[in-house]
Amino acid sequence: MANKIRIGIAGYGNLGRGVEAAVTRSADMDLVGIFTRRPPADIKPASGVSVHALDTIERFRDEIDVLILCGGSKSDLPEQGPALAAQFSTVDSFDTHNKIPEYFAAVDQAAAAGGNIAIISVGWDPGLFSLNRLYGEAVLPEGQTYTFWGKGISQGHSDAIRRVPGVKAGVQYTIPTEAAIERVRGGELPELTTREKHRRECYVVLEEGADAAAVEQAIVSMPDYFADYDTTVNFISEDELRRDHAGMPHGGFVIRSGKTSAEHSQVIEYALRLDSNPGFTASVLVAYARAAYRLRQQGETGAKTVFDIAPGLLSPKSAAELRKELL
Amino acid sequence: MANKIRIGIAGYGNLGRGVEAAVTRSADMDLVGIFTRRPPADIKPASGVSVHALDTIERFRDEIDVLILCGGSKSDLPEQGPALAAQFSTVDSFDTHNKIPEYFAAVDQAAAAGGNIAIISVGWDPGLFSLNRLYGEAVLPEGQTYTFWGKGISQGHSDAIRRVPGVKAGVQYTIPTEAAIERVRGGELPELTTREKHRRECYVVLEEGADAAAVEQAIVSMPDYFADYDTTVNFISEDELRRDHAGMPHGGFVIRSGKTSAEHSQVIEYALRLDSNPGFTASVLVAYARAAYRLRQQGETGAKTVFDIAPGLLSPKSAAELRKELL
Repeated sequence: MANKIRIGIAGYGNLGRGVEAAVTRSADMDLVGIFTRRPPADIKPASGVSVHALDTIERFRDEIDVLILCGGSKSDLPEQGPALAAQFSTVDSFDTHNKIPEYFAAVDQAAAAGGNIAIISVGWDPGLFSLNRLYGEAVLPEGQTYTFWGKGISQGHSDAIRRVPGVKAGVQYTIPTEAAIERVRGGELPELTTREKHRRECYVVLEEGADAAAVEQAIVSMPDYFADYDTTVNFISEDELRRDHAGMPHGGFVIRSGKTSAEHSQVIEYALRLDSNPGFTASVLVAYARAAYRLRQQGETGAKTVFDIAPGLLSPKSAAELRKELL
Repeated sequence: MANKIRIGIAGYGNLGRGVEAAVTRSADMDLVGIFTRRPPADIKPASGVSVHALDTIERFRDEIDVLILCGGSKSDLPEQGPALAAQFSTVDSFDTHNKIPEYFAAVDQAAAAGGNIAIISVGWDPGLFSLNRLYGEAVLPEGQTYTFWGKGISQGHSDAIRRVPGVKAGVQYTIPTEAAIERVRGGELPELTTREKHRRECYVVLEEGADAAAVEQAIVSMPDYFADYDTTVNFISEDELRRDHAGMPHGGFVIRSGKTSAEHSQVIEYALRLDSNPGFTASVLVAYARAAYRLRQQGETGAKTVFDIAPGLLSPKSAAELRKELL
């Protein structure tokens, strides 16, 4: 085997821990270090790898082939993405869909100037779901693409619940509507309203003395977040929240339904059922780190997305092995 | 828009007709002609495009950007693939899995020598299913990949039935076993026998005076084709065969089930439900013809597979449009 790919991790939350686990299990990769804005001594990584202050990362430019960015899309990545792509080849999971064009432009400029590759918006949505939207549309140009999310926890909606006066803690599950999925699977190309596609299920711990009815009303009528959905609110204890809702399952479906002639419907369905959203996203990031390394070896620079990456670059196997074993 | 991509079709069976329909509906493509070994005057294409003898195709070298090969894998493509890739950039659906390495080598040599691109083994299996086997394994390296086919007609098994003495006509459906799929979806990583994964359903028209019991026994005990499966044989009339079994539906599932930590199972499922197998395969070929054209424009030559093709090359949209609309 050629030299191992030397990986750095920037940010050590759930996603960073998932990346650590995935890199540790990849025979063609070495984990160089974890970089954090917290005091490095506070972090005891599962792998035992060394931890450093993020603002000292410049010293590691010759020791890291690909830096995997594990910060959040809201405030971390818009700043870190371009700054770190100027110094390292990077992979990130930037997932604010409507800001992707401007994020791409900023990272592209920094990566190109630094002579690096930066693969942005990697994960499952954006990421594997995006790929399936693209493959579906390219293969069945006359048709319709449907994306359903869940069952899974939506961070944004859970945050919205917690801001309601009287709420001590809570989580929100996005649940795709089985009836809507069945209609799409049947090839009928339905027009689906927001309310028909997903419902929302909330598990809420009340502050002492809070008015349950008022809290429920505040949640179900909240514009943008809940008003357009069928929303159920369940009140539970703090113990129940910890015991039953600590996991981070997620998943969903991308379905492309189209016609290749007047009489022939064709349906493509891609589905994910994930016990751990960050664990899965981390695994996707690590596969694309392999591609980033190889593209850089081939002399490419600048920002890329999953659309630009030939699938074979993701596998540790050679092109000949892939043709023989997987084609 | 840039110049339209000029497409030729070599071979005009079910697949060739599907390609004709798909090209006609692609705004960025022009259909130049159909090339056949039959007398050209015998063919009246739906699109009205001109038909030529295949052995005159050399004269069209300056008029065709990508030639889509619609011959069979058994005897047509092993010969036509290399011969035509020497003269044209090509896309084909070579699907004899265990002969792919030698076919790739022969086509690669011819295409490279001719300064052409040749994308081989395009369709859904090999093709989109192969892609999902690769993406699944790359993202979840610790796990297992399961491919199920059907419900659909297997040409090879239908041919085998027809060779049984006493059989006048017949078709065979491969049917994936729901119970096996459910076990895989549940994340339990089962070891499945051949018999557990698929069953086989035959619809047979007997020759006059044939012994039904003997025919049934000959079918269900046939080694390689049926002996390892639960096979049911239904005797029907020629009219019923024509009325109920003239379609070419197919489909199947690629499921990757793996773990990203001791406690987290992750399941990726890709499913196709196709009213028309050749219509869908043709649509995939046409999308990859777009990629072949673009790669050739970029100066690339030689044989490629779906593993080598960046997804964005399949879409008529620009990279910026794809990032904005589909990522």
